[in-house]
Amino acid sequence: MSTIRIAQAQINPILGDFEYNKKKILKYIEIAREKDADIVIFPELSLCGCPPEDLLLKPGFLETSRKFLDEISKKVSGIVAIIGYPDTDGKNVYDALAVIQEGNIKGKYYKIELQDFEERRYFKEGKEPFSLKLKEALIVPSIGKDIWIEGNVLEDFARKIRADIVLNLSSSPFHIKKFQVRIKVAQRFAKRSEVFLVYTNLVGGQDELVFDGGSFIVSPDGNIIACAKRFSEQLLVTDIKVKEEKSLEETYIAESLSPLEEVYNALVIGTRDYVNKNGFEKVLIGLSGGIDSSVVAAIAVDALGRENVIGVTMPSRFTSSETLNDAERLAKNLGIRLIKLPIEPIYETYLKILEKVFDTSEHTVAHENLQARIRGNLLMAISNRFGYLVLTTGNKSETAVGYCTLYGDTAGGFAPIKDVPKTMVYELARYINSIWAKEIIPESVIKRDPTAELRPNQKDEDTLPPYPVLDRIIHEYVEENKEVEEIIEEGFEPDVVKDVIRMIKRSEYKRRQSPPGIKITAKSFGKDWRFPITNRYMK
Amino acid sequence: MSTIRIAQAQINPILGDFEYNKKKILKYIEIAREKDADIVIFPELSLCGCPPEDLLLKPGFLETSRKFLDEISKKVSGIVAIIGYPDTDGKNVYDALAVIQEGNIKGKYYKIELQDFEERRYFKEGKEPFSLKLKEALIVPSIGKDIWIEGNVLEDFARKIRADIVLNLSSSPFHIKKFQVRIKVAQRFAKRSEVFLVYTNLVGGQDELVFDGGSFIVSPDGNIIACAKRFSEQLLVTDIKVKEEKSLEETYIAESLSPLEEVYNALVIGTRDYVNKNGFEKVLIGLSGGIDSSVVAAIAVDALGRENVIGVTMPSRFTSSETLNDAERLAKNLGIRLIKLPIEPIYETYLKILEKVFDTSEHTVAHENLQARIRGNLLMAISNRFGYLVLTTGNKSETAVGYCTLYGDTAGGFAPIKDVPKTMVYELARYINSIWAKEIIPESVIKRDPTAELRPNQKDEDTLPPYPVLDRIIHEYVEENKEVEEIIEEGFEPDVVKDVIRMIKRSEYKRRQSPPGIKITAKSFGKDWRFPITNRYMK
Repeated sequence: MSTIRIAQAQINPILGDFEYNKKKILKYIEIAREKDADIVIFPELSLCGCPPEDLLLKPGFLETSRKFLDEISKKVSGIVAIIGYPDTDGKNVYDALAVIQEGNIKGKYYKIELQDFEERRYFKEGKEPFSLKLKEALIVPSIGKDIWIEGNVLEDFARKIRADIVLNLSSSPFHIKKFQVRIKVAQRFAKRSEVFLVYTNLVGGQDELVFDGGSFIVSPDGNIIACAKRFSEQLLVTDIKVKEEKSLEETYIAESLSPLEEVYNALVIGTRDYVNKNGFEKVLIGLSGGIDSSVVAAIAVDALGRENVIGVTMPSRFTSSETLNDAERLAKNLGIRLIKLPIEPIYETYLKILEKVFDTSEHTVAHENLQARIRGNLLMAISNRFGYLVLTTGNKSETAVGYCTLYGDTAGGFAPIKDVPKTMVYELARYINSIWAKEIIPESVIKRDPTAELRPNQKDEDTLPPYPVLDRIIHEYVEENKEVEEIIEEGFEPDVVKDVIRMIKRSEYKRRQSPPGIKITAKSFGKDWRFPITNRYMK
Repeated sequence: MSTIRIAQAQINPILGDFEYNKKKILKYIEIAREKDADIVIFPELSLCGCPPEDLLLKPGFLETSRKFLDEISKKVSGIVAIIGYPDTDGKNVYDALAVIQEGNIKGKYYKIELQDFEERRYFKEGKEPFSLKLKEALIVPSIGKDIWIEGNVLEDFARKIRADIVLNLSSSPFHIKKFQVRIKVAQRFAKRSEVFLVYTNLVGGQDELVFDGGSFIVSPDGNIIACAKRFSEQLLVTDIKVKEEKSLEETYIAESLSPLEEVYNALVIGTRDYVNKNGFEKVLIGLSGGIDSSVVAAIAVDALGRENVIGVTMPSRFTSSETLNDAERLAKNLGIRLIKLPIEPIYETYLKILEKVFDTSEHTVAHENLQARIRGNLLMAISNRFGYLVLTTGNKSETAVGYCTLYGDTAGGFAPIKDVPKTMVYELARYINSIWAKEIIPESVIKRDPTAELRPNQKDEDTLPPYPVLDRIIHEYVEENKEVEEIIEEGFEPDVVKDVIRMIKRSEYKRRQSPPGIKITAKSFGKDWRFPITNRYMK
């Protein structure tokens, strides 16, 4: 019987910033050593950041990665460090990990089960499992999907050599309830193979993805004996007594999160990392007094601090005093600066110029979009002048059906709630008020019927089905990949279903020009969604 | 010895419009039969249009495809028809072709060599080659890359059974000189396997891709004995005498095109198909009097007719009388309507409003972008009012280094010259004047130093290296995938190279929100280019 002290370094690297990542890795190795850990484990591809995409096609990127791995190796002593990085044998590229001990790379392992065709574009699969002995424990390292496929080479190997511990280095992006899926997979593996399964995940935002951390250890009987926080960096240290059924030492187990809490945290870290990793400090948000911009502003304040969030309210002739008051109240509640710029004079000047081309006295969609675009321009002008990033406020329901103005309310660098359905935006609003334990988002904002206020007495429901219906149809169509007839069979109004799906198809061109936003569902309108613009298949 | 009359139906389908495609296929079958062809061949996936992307994940799409194939089959008599379509066995999806004879599907073949991971995302590879006997000829059908790999299953099979003819159904997108590559591959295959190689390609635009047609037949000795036009539909009919070394009948061989002619034709058909297949008739182009908008306008007139192209010139205080005159002259030369909308009053109103936020008396980048965005808004307002599609005028050089204003000059539905380097835009201008045999693009436009005219005396070269240098660096970095040091070694100024590559990296976010445009190089900033926005690797 021997006790192994395992340190899981759940870190948040910056893609391509090898210097920054090296410092972070060395710092975590140092802390792990100070805590007398025997081994410290870093997530999949954490040396370079994840996913590197076409950077993996640059030989210099791979050389740089290798060079930094060597520099780190030289500084490792008194502990075994396991680091995920991209490796190459000059011909192929591998999703690799290195086992580092006393200044040397003692072994390497290449991921065997590549996740999908996105990974196969870059990586060749490894063939050979690998093991290392640490004290009395036999340890088999693995990467990502290696533990997801029952009876594969890796699992057979671990069983055959009677491994005590299987390490899994992961960079698994968040979507709602994904965490529970990972746990289940790991539990099954641990029980089947009678091993401790040590799952180490990346944390942090990278463009549209959020890695949610939540690293954990499952014992051979399937119990979670340790679990790191979600959505933040942590060094999770756990003692494992191998050759025994359970760990006996005390371990850290983070509180579990509800789906809404998960989403909120993903939005906060995703926003913070996009803003900061791209070198911005402050963000600018157009505040309409509606629910979407209110929720985005609250998220931004949590992510960046209130001094780094600037609201801009841009009333027009169609803005009611209620919504204007609400925007002001929200800014006050959040303690952020609010700039007020009326768009009326600009709007009138545009109409006067456009009078040369068409009769502007009749209110049309051109008038509506124009107002949104004037607001977009004002935000971008301030952004250009001061270097603030504009956050857009479109939600998934709008993004799906194209209920938004291209170059208007979609103008900006990042769209935090792009993958959040409108009905969930309301839930988030209530959740936000509950965590601040006071009214942040005014009750009147939550209660008011949604309106774009681009023409007199406009309501979203003039154009769209009620959001609870709309969101369910979108979910069925987008996430469940169902077709018109199947959705109708579930009891929705046939014309409503057809209308919604027609709107989804017709707004492909808008999505193509929209800013990136955070994925929180199993299928977001980002890389998960690959439909042609030119397309007449309407089911 | 027997003569086989082969008809190659180089068609331009519309993605997802099965009714339209069915009619077109039946029409071509009918014409082929009238011309006494023994066999008529349609391109890869031509029944549904190409590439269908995630539509292939919809079971209904595959069912519909199959249903239309059956409908077509029933109408085939007196000829063998070979049609490319997506097939499914309920579990997997295949890139398939059907051999149809006398109302029945007599055989099927599934593509064996999938092109890349994009194709593997959807298709499973076929395993079994297939042959059919027609008169005395033994014919082996194949799809796409099946003939690209020496000594593979398909080639072995064709040789073993001593096939006379190998058919290749293709949907191969255009880039410069790709046609020559296809010919070479086909010649090698034909010579190695001693067969007539009948290569049938799709034609037409689909979002960023242009399929360039140019279907052909290579004889067993490697000669091109027939060749269809590039960039237009055609039924290419050829008599082949099998069991002889050469065809003896007269055949059609289209004129060959220079790289510049290829590009011009791709831009015209790509623009026409994007506009028309998406249900638009007229387009709107902001005419600055510069070379880019002039070339785009000329392409649009060729693609859509002058009555469907509307120019808008939007002078500001920085617009010189020369450029304004040139815009007017261009419109007159092309015979298109020109709308003149001064942006000055709007610009001044914006500055007055923005005065509340910053001192607008000092000219900054915010002022420059604002002008571009006002122009974008005016174009979009007219677009929204009349349903015209806005064509943007950005070229590849600008797109690469981000020398453009997001939501300003990038605002629009389609970017015809997005993949055309600035130096080639000049070549196109001269080429356009040569084909019209008169001055279309004024000489002064071609001669003037490039300027965005967003501040006094602005020249592109204030910000960018001279275009011949810039374009070579972009080519090395983007298309040749070279890194900073390698490019410097080729003799470029180190600081210039570093600057350009830094600009390319930094403008990833702009490209992500830019409209689609036509791919003409081996690596365009579309699906060929997958770099993260958040990325600090600067080589």
